[in-house]
Amino acid sequence: MKGNVIVGQSGGPTAVINSSLAGVYKTALACGAGKVYGMRYGIEGLLAEKYVDLSEYLKSDLDVEILKHTPASYLGTCRYKLPASEGNEELYEKIFTILNKLEIEVLLYIGGNDSMDTIKQLSDYAAAHGKSQRFMGVPKTIDNDLPITDHTPGFGSAAKYIASSVKEVICDGRGFANTPMVTIIEIMGRNAGWLTGAAALAKGEDCEGVDLIYLPEVAFDTKEFVNEVKEIMKKKSTVFVAISEGIRTADGTYISELGGGSDYVDAFGHKQLAGSATYLSNLIGSEVGCKTRAIEFSTLQRCASHMASLTDINEAFMAGAAAMKAADEGETGKMPVIERVSDHPYRTSTSVYDIHKIANVEKMVPREWINEKGNGVTEDFVNYALPLIQGEFHGIMVNGLPRHLRLDDGR
Amino acid sequence: MKGNVIVGQSGGPTAVINSSLAGVYKTALACGAGKVYGMRYGIEGLLAEKYVDLSEYLKSDLDVEILKHTPASYLGTCRYKLPASEGNEELYEKIFTILNKLEIEVLLYIGGNDSMDTIKQLSDYAAAHGKSQRFMGVPKTIDNDLPITDHTPGFGSAAKYIASSVKEVICDGRGFANTPMVTIIEIMGRNAGWLTGAAALAKGEDCEGVDLIYLPEVAFDTKEFVNEVKEIMKKKSTVFVAISEGIRTADGTYISELGGGSDYVDAFGHKQLAGSATYLSNLIGSEVGCKTRAIEFSTLQRCASHMASLTDINEAFMAGAAAMKAADEGETGKMPVIERVSDHPYRTSTSVYDIHKIANVEKMVPREWINEKGNGVTEDFVNYALPLIQGEFHGIMVNGLPRHLRLDDGR
Repeated sequence: MKGNVIVGQSGGPTAVINSSLAGVYKTALACGAGKVYGMRYGIEGLLAEKYVDLSEYLKSDLDVEILKHTPASYLGTCRYKLPASEGNEELYEKIFTILNKLEIEVLLYIGGNDSMDTIKQLSDYAAAHGKSQRFMGVPKTIDNDLPITDHTPGFGSAAKYIASSVKEVICDGRGFANTPMVTIIEIMGRNAGWLTGAAALAKGEDCEGVDLIYLPEVAFDTKEFVNEVKEIMKKKSTVFVAISEGIRTADGTYISELGGGSDYVDAFGHKQLAGSATYLSNLIGSEVGCKTRAIEFSTLQRCASHMASLTDINEAFMAGAAAMKAADEGETGKMPVIERVSDHPYRTSTSVYDIHKIANVEKMVPREWINEKGNGVTEDFVNYALPLIQGEFHGIMVNGLPRHLRLDDGR
Repeated sequence: MKGNVIVGQSGGPTAVINSSLAGVYKTALACGAGKVYGMRYGIEGLLAEKYVDLSEYLKSDLDVEILKHTPASYLGTCRYKLPASEGNEELYEKIFTILNKLEIEVLLYIGGNDSMDTIKQLSDYAAAHGKSQRFMGVPKTIDNDLPITDHTPGFGSAAKYIASSVKEVICDGRGFANTPMVTIIEIMGRNAGWLTGAAALAKGEDCEGVDLIYLPEVAFDTKEFVNEVKEIMKKKSTVFVAISEGIRTADGTYISELGGGSDYVDAFGHKQLAGSATYLSNLIGSEVGCKTRAIEFSTLQRCASHMASLTDINEAFMAGAAAMKAADEGETGKMPVIERVSDHPYRTSTSVYDIHKIANVEKMVPREWINEKGNGVTEDFVNYALPLIQGEFHGIMVNGLPRHLRLDDGR
């Protein structure tokens, strides 16, 4: 290729989203791209003509290496939903005017479900209006809810953080086993329970694991929940429960709403959830009368690069590289998916897939990977997820803390 | 020595409390102790004659090494306050009967303020009643509030976890800098602000750091807080605030109480705090009208051994070893303190100190290490804390997760 490339990051970040950015950057240079631009704050920033020439910031291989283990969106992100092109031609033409001005040949967007919709809209508009630019998605989401791909870069690292933190919380609670206590851990994942299921990975030779796991895929029954906790307490004094932030009752009411959660709704119409663990721990406190503890892993799940999975870092890089390579070869309106070639040993490859089959489709945990009672995951789930948390990346520590790369550092 | 040793763990755990246990164990064997017993669940467990012969569990140097990086109380802990001996002679005699039965020569107790009181009571009772046993405390608390010692084992690792997590949260928030947002991070520390101050360590070449830090040592003014946030928002869109769980207004009202926190009070009369960050983020939401986020680091601060400081692991071991060695040399009613021999390079040593000067005394952050406005810490604080978070310990990873040692694993 001879033209320029522009890459953006969108939606909630992950611990390895910048590894995909590094994959795009290195591969774009290898493909002979002129300039590689980075959108500041995704499409929203691009519309305000906020972008940087990445070569001014990534000046050495060391910079690129540090970028790979810098958490969250190095370029800045947005939660901007590109409206359908019909009736919004002015907006679309504005984007293409900016792309033309920058002599962009390829636009890549690193993101999840909503971001893939942006790639779909832009590539469809380009095809319909004879625009020359090509558009590629790069999969990214801790939620692991993109279809077709075996899994999504970002999930493995979040799962590793969750499993190791759950293990530590169980260690902590086990030390207090002299006093009955129920610990409820709230994990991210609005509709898909992949991350909550990852709590099951804590179980092993040295850890008894969590006792109950509730995913949003199965309706949550608070009465049954209290009974299940009571049953377990007959056998052991400390009970550990992992719940998804998105669990809801059969009629669709979020548990967090029972506790009076926030009414804030984001640009995509998603309700901001918080407080299910607090609500349920108060419930157990009053129904069982024991000590309880509510823990929210919160934002750290998506930015704890210090516990990133090496497998995930490498696959995130691979996904960025594959998207760029496919675009260089003339593809557009597609996204690389990860294919699991083998389980033993774990091996993956990538191929590119039509974005129309991916955008706006959410992949849930299959019902058969959730146990019959709906309070745990099966061995199949564990076998699926375990390879994704393997390996560690010991980054550069400076003054006792992991070193990150920062774009807005005035350089 | 020829007799036996018994060691217990008490109070809230730390990431390195078991490194002190390893230090006691290895040194006791080196001093020629017969058996080394471990109390299950501290003094409370001992009173129920719950104890183990540690040699049955720590069978190899590998076991001891894994123990050193196992978080939380390997032996189990308690929050049991030993009452004053006057009027409770029966209870005390029961303890000594058990100690005699086990042919205990030395009892060591790894803990914080309240646990040191237990050592004081027992050694005083032994002296007054002609008992032969010797009693030593081993300092341990993430709160860093023990007097005389330069710092307390456990603090450095919690500070390292907090600083690195704060750095990651700032990375995450920086990615959203296109939208004004205030993030409030709630950190442990009821009365002493050492851990909250550790949030300042996140600042460096690659991180702008938190904007405001509020310690419990200074009265908190909610109006002033809102104004300070508004002032900062004139210059930057994303504001990061670190608060102690124990911040309170001038009249002593905890901020968490303003938000309707829990009324639960533990055995030592400490109120269970939660929700200050949530209260303040709601306040900012309504007063400033921007997006807010409340993050509680919660239990992970005291059990995140995967981010333990190597300096802390080694000093915790040293503290356990020093206590055992002093007891072997005939000392009783004392605790080893860490003395900072040099800042550049950082060097420490230990000496033992009279427990009467330590028990029930809380060491606060000196006012001169907090800035004049009471919304940050000074360079002196940073210079004090920074050496304590240095170094990493890359433990054994099994199936992608840190391996721990578990006592109740049926072996």
